[in-house]
Amino acid sequence: MEFTAQQISDMLGGTVEGNPSAKVSRLSKIEEGSPGSLSFLANPKYIPHIYSTKASVVIVNRSFVSENPVEATLVRVDDAYASFAKLLEMYNRIQRDKKGIEEHSFISPSAKVGKDVYIGAFAYIGHHAVIKDGAKIYPQVYLGDNVVIGENTTLFSGAKVYSDCVIGANCTLHSDSVIGADGFGFAPSTGIYNKVAQIGNVIIEDDVEIGANTSIDRATLGSTIIRKGVKLDNLIQVAHNVEIGENTVIAAQTGIAGSTKIGKDCMIGGQVGIVGHITIADGVKVAAQSGIGSSISTPGEIVQGSPAFNISDYKRTYVLFRKLPELEKKIIELEKTISDLRQTTT
Amino acid sequence: MEFTAQQISDMLGGTVEGNPSAKVSRLSKIEEGSPGSLSFLANPKYIPHIYSTKASVVIVNRSFVSENPVEATLVRVDDAYASFAKLLEMYNRIQRDKKGIEEHSFISPSAKVGKDVYIGAFAYIGHHAVIKDGAKIYPQVYLGDNVVIGENTTLFSGAKVYSDCVIGANCTLHSDSVIGADGFGFAPSTGIYNKVAQIGNVIIEDDVEIGANTSIDRATLGSTIIRKGVKLDNLIQVAHNVEIGENTVIAAQTGIAGSTKIGKDCMIGGQVGIVGHITIADGVKVAAQSGIGSSISTPGEIVQGSPAFNISDYKRTYVLFRKLPELEKKIIELEKTISDLRQTTT
Amino acid sequence: MEFTAQQISDMLGGTVEGNPSAKVSRLSKIEEGSPGSLSFLANPKYIPHIYSTKASVVIVNRSFVSENPVEATLVRVDDAYASFAKLLEMYNRIQRDKKGIEEHSFISPSAKVGKDVYIGAFAYIGHHAVIKDGAKIYPQVYLGDNVVIGENTTLFSGAKVYSDCVIGANCTLHSDSVIGADGFGFAPSTGIYNKVAQIGNVIIEDDVEIGANTSIDRATLGSTIIRKGVKLDNLIQVAHNVEIGENTVIAAQTGIAGSTKIGKDCMIGGQVGIVGHITIADGVKVAAQSGIGSSISTPGEIVQGSPAFNISDYKRTYVLFRKLPELEKKIIELEKTISDLRQTTT
Repeated sequence: MEFTAQQISDMLGGTVEGNPSAKVSRLSKIEEGSPGSLSFLANPKYIPHIYSTKASVVIVNRSFVSENPVEATLVRVDDAYASFAKLLEMYNRIQRDKKGIEEHSFISPSAKVGKDVYIGAFAYIGHHAVIKDGAKIYPQVYLGDNVVIGENTTLFSGAKVYSDCVIGANCTLHSDSVIGADGFGFAPSTGIYNKVAQIGNVIIEDDVEIGANTSIDRATLGSTIIRKGVKLDNLIQVAHNVEIGENTVIAAQTGIAGSTKIGKDCMIGGQVGIVGHITIADGVKVAAQSGIGSSISTPGEIVQGSPAFNISDYKRTYVLFRKLPELEKKIIELEKTISDLRQTTT
Repeated sequence: MEFTAQQISDMLGGTVEGNPSAKVSRLSKIEEGSPGSLSFLANPKYIPHIYSTKASVVIVNRSFVSENPVEATLVRVDDAYASFAKLLEMYNRIQRDKKGIEEHSFISPSAKVGKDVYIGAFAYIGHHAVIKDGAKIYPQVYLGDNVVIGENTTLFSGAKVYSDCVIGANCTLHSDSVIGADGFGFAPSTGIYNKVAQIGNVIIEDDVEIGANTSIDRATLGSTIIRKGVKLDNLIQVAHNVEIGENTVIAAQTGIAGSTKIGKDCMIGGQVGIVGHITIADGVKVAAQSGIGSSISTPGEIVQGSPAFNISDYKRTYVLFRKLPELEKKIIELEKTISDLRQTTT
Repeated sequence: MEFTAQQISDMLGGTVEGNPSAKVSRLSKIEEGSPGSLSFLANPKYIPHIYSTKASVVIVNRSFVSENPVEATLVRVDDAYASFAKLLEMYNRIQRDKKGIEEHSFISPSAKVGKDVYIGAFAYIGHHAVIKDGAKIYPQVYLGDNVVIGENTTLFSGAKVYSDCVIGANCTLHSDSVIGADGFGFAPSTGIYNKVAQIGNVIIEDDVEIGANTSIDRATLGSTIIRKGVKLDNLIQVAHNVEIGENTVIAAQTGIAGSTKIGKDCMIGGQVGIVGHITIADGVKVAAQSGIGSSISTPGEIVQGSPAFNISDYKRTYVLFRKLPELEKKIIELEKTISDLRQTTT
């Protein structure tokens, strides 16, 4: 793929300043630009780079005023960052535009495969599975019996979806994410543990992203539910019967225990642990590495610590934690002073 | 699968109250019941739902006395929860009753495959591997050379077992669990690290469950050992030469460093970290997110914190941690009072 | 494989003491030795075992003086531990000496495959991928388009490398490690999150080891970089645009957020969390379960805690944390004493 500055400008509704036939074939950061690369300048703190960049073409805001000579050809647009993000996405769509069914895939005769679908080699499509139009099933993906994959959803290599789970439209599941493994349920019985069969499923609604190696267990009965627009990073654990509300975002390595219900629009940091059978209100924010041991009922509350409490209180408390040696010293001094005083007064 | 209330009652040794030919084809929670579903009522706090449920058939305890009219057909049994769990398990066994060898699997000619075995497509069975009767090897599973899989053990899609590892009978390994990868052993040598070859294996005894994306490393020499009845949740790290005692249960995302020996009947919460080369006594309980930095020699001890100590002490201490601003205020007041006193007395 | 004591001695440049034709066919720890096994004795605390071991041959230091009769044949060498490690490695190399291309693999016609390469069944080699001489691609590995795998690098079963990523020479990637999944980048827009396309890649230099289920995300733009000699344990999260310096070692389940730069020769414990957009100096050590919330600019600093600070200060502070109930008691006593004093003086 090679484009001229003029072609890029036309795509973005911009205007060219410099050589309209300057050619670019890849995208780069402005500070790492090289001949043939296309960059952008949005954040003012990167302005100095525009005078030294080797990128052939740079997208800038219409309002940008250069105070030194610029070698690169400029494409001026209303919003340089948004325009560049749009190009990134177009680039990605072209790069990942896989279609057709590769040899060496296993598709059950009872499965239903839609139009414009990609199914890679060594992918396994179970009985009665449904793959809707435009879905991309990369090599080595596993779809158990009765699984449904929505329109334009992509499962990268090695993603696994156990039987009966349902994935919505426009979702992305990264490699080795595991959807629908058995919930961790055992009934103790005279020193040993008997497995409680897990016959529910996982429902993932539209526009959800699931990171690499993230595990979402099936419900014991009913469904583990990931609502529309949720974004989960890598290596996250979601236990059986959990529900995560719309547009909640969770960073890597966080774990959520069974039957907990998380509200919508929450932001949860990395390595957070959340116990089972509690409820987190909408819009709650949890700092990384926190532990949530009980329900949070105030929408929008921000917490930290393990167990977590209000983040401002936590920060104030942690300052004093660090000052504990000083506090202890003061107590010792007080004891001494008082002992002296007592001798004085008696 | 469709059953009548009478058939269910006969399976469970119960008695029917209502329409014996009421038909059900799936299981549901009582509060989510719908026509054609079978539910159960065991916990008294769910009693109100029995008057409104749309489930066609509900399993209840013989002792249950209804105080309002019930629409559903009832099946009365001695223990409604146990009966329902039994049905869950039967359901699961039928659902997952896979047998035979699918095309596109790779089975070394030197491997030994028992009776009534399932081997899915794209599964890889290495040289001299042994798969005993009734084992289920789902698609895309990897068994290295000389691996042994016990009777009736199930490996779900994409589970990996490196060469020379041995898995017992009636185990379940979930997707993308990795058994027998190299232990993390490196010998420092003038600024770089030389790998120490890891030639031991992993031994998993009978009745063990291993969660999705859990990793158990092979021993440097000898064996990493997971004893009978151990249950490991998802995303757990077990390092080389660790031993985990019988019927110990460990929640998700916990990590155990090399050569540590954990007793039997322990319960370890999620996201716990345990250092290497220590011993944990039988029956110890560890609260989630704790860090264990040294051996625990008292059987049954319960600990929390990082580093962890007795859980009651920890809880008391954490209350004071939260009160640190208040404690500091008291110290400041004391200092002031004493300063005043000194002026008074001098 | 069977060797005599004499053959082993010749390989290691040692001298035999006992029966030179004693035969061994496997390696064991000295305390677990059995007839036919070869052990070693290096650590003095294991000396008692040499008088009781059932191992047929034991490698010992030339300087070792036995004070009791020894049944095993001894092979005396300059450095018993180093010699044994060398044997371990030879053993491993023989065990894992796979070559050739197994049936049922998918190799794009445009891929370039070097000499002496192993490609296992169900491995997927994308378009224009390059596999250099001596590389081992185990079954079910996925290499996306344009991926490069360096000389003598091994990817164990199920490792995944997304398109455009580059892996150096002499690396080891364990099962289900995921290299190059999308970074976790979303732009908020009126309540929902729009994905920011991630079009960079991951570059892994030579001599790197990557543990099972570890995830390294591709850069948004540019590269996520793992420098020469880095060792990463299992279940680690490395976010987009991170850079990890030469010979840094990181234990299991640690997570590093986006754009952070870690120096060389660092040692980072397990379950550590490191926020994004910071810099860690060379040679820094971080205790397990710590949280790094801001840059560390002092080379060689050792830290602990969440948020972390100097490890000695942390340990001193944590001792006082445990003594908080005692400190509170002292404060209460002080308050009482002062109250009494005031009454006395007024």
